[in-house]
Amino acid sequence: MPVFAIKTRSSQSRARTGKLSTAHGEIKTPVFMPVGTLGTVKALSPEELMACGAQIILGNTYHLYLRPGCEIIDIFSGLHGFMNWHGPILTDSGGFQIFSLAKMAKITQEGYSFQSHIDGSRHMITPEDAVDIQLRLNSDILMCLDQCISYPAERQQAEAAHELTLDWAVRGRAQMEKNCTGKNLLFGIVQGGMYRDLRELSALALADLDLPGYAVGGLSVGEPVELMHEIALHTLRLLPENKPRYIMGVGRPEDLVEMTGSGADMFDCVMPTRNARNGQLFTAFGKININNAGFRTDTAPVEPGCTCYTCRNFTRAYLHHLYRNRELLSYRLNTIHNVYYYTSLMEQMRQAIEQDAFLSFRKEFYAKRKNIAC
Amino acid sequence: MPVFAIKTRSSQSRARTGKLSTAHGEIKTPVFMPVGTLGTVKALSPEELMACGAQIILGNTYHLYLRPGCEIIDIFSGLHGFMNWHGPILTDSGGFQIFSLAKMAKITQEGYSFQSHIDGSRHMITPEDAVDIQLRLNSDILMCLDQCISYPAERQQAEAAHELTLDWAVRGRAQMEKNCTGKNLLFGIVQGGMYRDLRELSALALADLDLPGYAVGGLSVGEPVELMHEIALHTLRLLPENKPRYIMGVGRPEDLVEMTGSGADMFDCVMPTRNARNGQLFTAFGKININNAGFRTDTAPVEPGCTCYTCRNFTRAYLHHLYRNRELLSYRLNTIHNVYYYTSLMEQMRQAIEQDAFLSFRKEFYAKRKNIAC
Repeated sequence: MPVFAIKTRSSQSRARTGKLSTAHGEIKTPVFMPVGTLGTVKALSPEELMACGAQIILGNTYHLYLRPGCEIIDIFSGLHGFMNWHGPILTDSGGFQIFSLAKMAKITQEGYSFQSHIDGSRHMITPEDAVDIQLRLNSDILMCLDQCISYPAERQQAEAAHELTLDWAVRGRAQMEKNCTGKNLLFGIVQGGMYRDLRELSALALADLDLPGYAVGGLSVGEPVELMHEIALHTLRLLPENKPRYIMGVGRPEDLVEMTGSGADMFDCVMPTRNARNGQLFTAFGKININNAGFRTDTAPVEPGCTCYTCRNFTRAYLHHLYRNRELLSYRLNTIHNVYYYTSLMEQMRQAIEQDAFLSFRKEFYAKRKNIAC
Repeated sequence: MPVFAIKTRSSQSRARTGKLSTAHGEIKTPVFMPVGTLGTVKALSPEELMACGAQIILGNTYHLYLRPGCEIIDIFSGLHGFMNWHGPILTDSGGFQIFSLAKMAKITQEGYSFQSHIDGSRHMITPEDAVDIQLRLNSDILMCLDQCISYPAERQQAEAAHELTLDWAVRGRAQMEKNCTGKNLLFGIVQGGMYRDLRELSALALADLDLPGYAVGGLSVGEPVELMHEIALHTLRLLPENKPRYIMGVGRPEDLVEMTGSGADMFDCVMPTRNARNGQLFTAFGKININNAGFRTDTAPVEPGCTCYTCRNFTRAYLHHLYRNRELLSYRLNTIHNVYYYTSLMEQMRQAIEQDAFLSFRKEFYAKRKNIAC
């Protein structure tokens, strides 16, 4: 059985639906993956994640490596048992967090050296280590260690980052061949900044490695949204048709719609979970901030017609009250709604693609979006 | 049908089991009521409360009066609809919180005047207002406005507080007769400090008012635990046998066992919920602090044999990790265990009383308690 099987291709766009097989279950694509940084998608239980339609969640290797540490995860033979989530898990490589969170991070051909942002302890992570750590987490999908650059970046810097990332992908693949005894899948990451030719070099060279999936990294790092969509489309077109294509760290509902149309299969972003904790809720009609005084007396659910647990059981007035008072239940109910919104959006896109109606879906999606409440 | 029916009397103690009928359902006594200050038992959903065995929850009138305010609750015809909890609710009168939280609180024969601890706004609450506010909350059980005193207190102060509380009970009862159109029940509160004769005066005078239930207030205010148990027993003996007897704001599992043996039927305390948020978990063997480093690698549940959601699904190692990182899920999982522990303790006592084995239950309860982990 192939790891990834395409089910339907849109005749109206580059969108497609498919099925990605992992050691912990099958994933219908296109899919959104909620972020569970420290072995918990903040505020949600595993059962709630499933009820929200989450098919796979993301863990952060850098965070889990530092806390609780691999020696604790080992006791549970991986992250699934530790956190009691028995669906698929994808872990990032840690590179992005080392660069953005760790102290004294230095990058060499060998790998990253850095100090923990928690206790200042010194660490070195090579591309081989990144694979080994993720194997100890028993991630269903591992990511190659990569170098992510900020925007704007000089061509020379983007070129060097792409070359290093490619070299590390080769080393990561070799480490997988040496140490992987299960069905874990290693994905490569395309870099190259906003330079179209570098993206091409990166994508084609990675494709030659015949990895089971590919990600587009280095997006949503400060570039204009039009440029992000352009680079995403450009890169997605260069990636193998028969492999799952994952856009890392993106993004807004609009981005998911556009990039699904450009042929992306997988997404992750902290937006639904983080924004929920800041009182911002997603609806088909746009975002609302539950803190707004207008919701004080509002007996409607967050989104009329939404079938999430929060909307089925609670009013905007109650959610407003909980949020105003920073009650713990607020973060959970908001997160449930937002994760459900994201997974439902993907489900709607899968249906539209299968009915070959992606363009009319997209048109309706934009038609509904007007900010009714903010 | 009587509001309160005694089912079984222990021949070995003053303990009894019973059934308390309210507009939102029947309650098996003795019962522990989790505290839901602001219209939410912190970190728990209504379904989780039920799964934890909560039969009735407590709301704080002072807090709800200020936030969200009665005009919001009115939209939902009471607190049940607002928070989507459709079991019974007891609300305190607000007196204790005005005294402990509000600014510039002044007490006169008329009532309390105070400034909100949130925005400094000025308010006046009379015994009649306390009833009216609780009727707007549609509390199943309302408490008379009372004056709680600290420990130690001069006899003169205790006497004045008892007399004022008694006068306010008379006024509260009159207000109920005037304004209560439903099945809401008003309970009186015995005061009198640690003076046995004042407790007697208070209990007997309140009994003459023929209210549907009575509470022992003014305990756990700083007095030695032996004195608290002595005054509780003394007061409980003076209260009508055929009415539910409620010990307010108490307490530790040991207190619940002792006071159930002394004839108490109802309890409330923030201890299971507040301590959960501080990492302290209750077990039959004593308290543990999940933050302790020894739990880092511990694959046992919080309490082996416990059938709560937390113990059925998660290990001490994971709970330790969540707590160390102050993850939102930590507060919920800890709270679920503690509330379940408290409701299970009451359930065990009800069973022991019905098997007329309260003393052997009590002996076993103490035999198990040794602090295994702290």
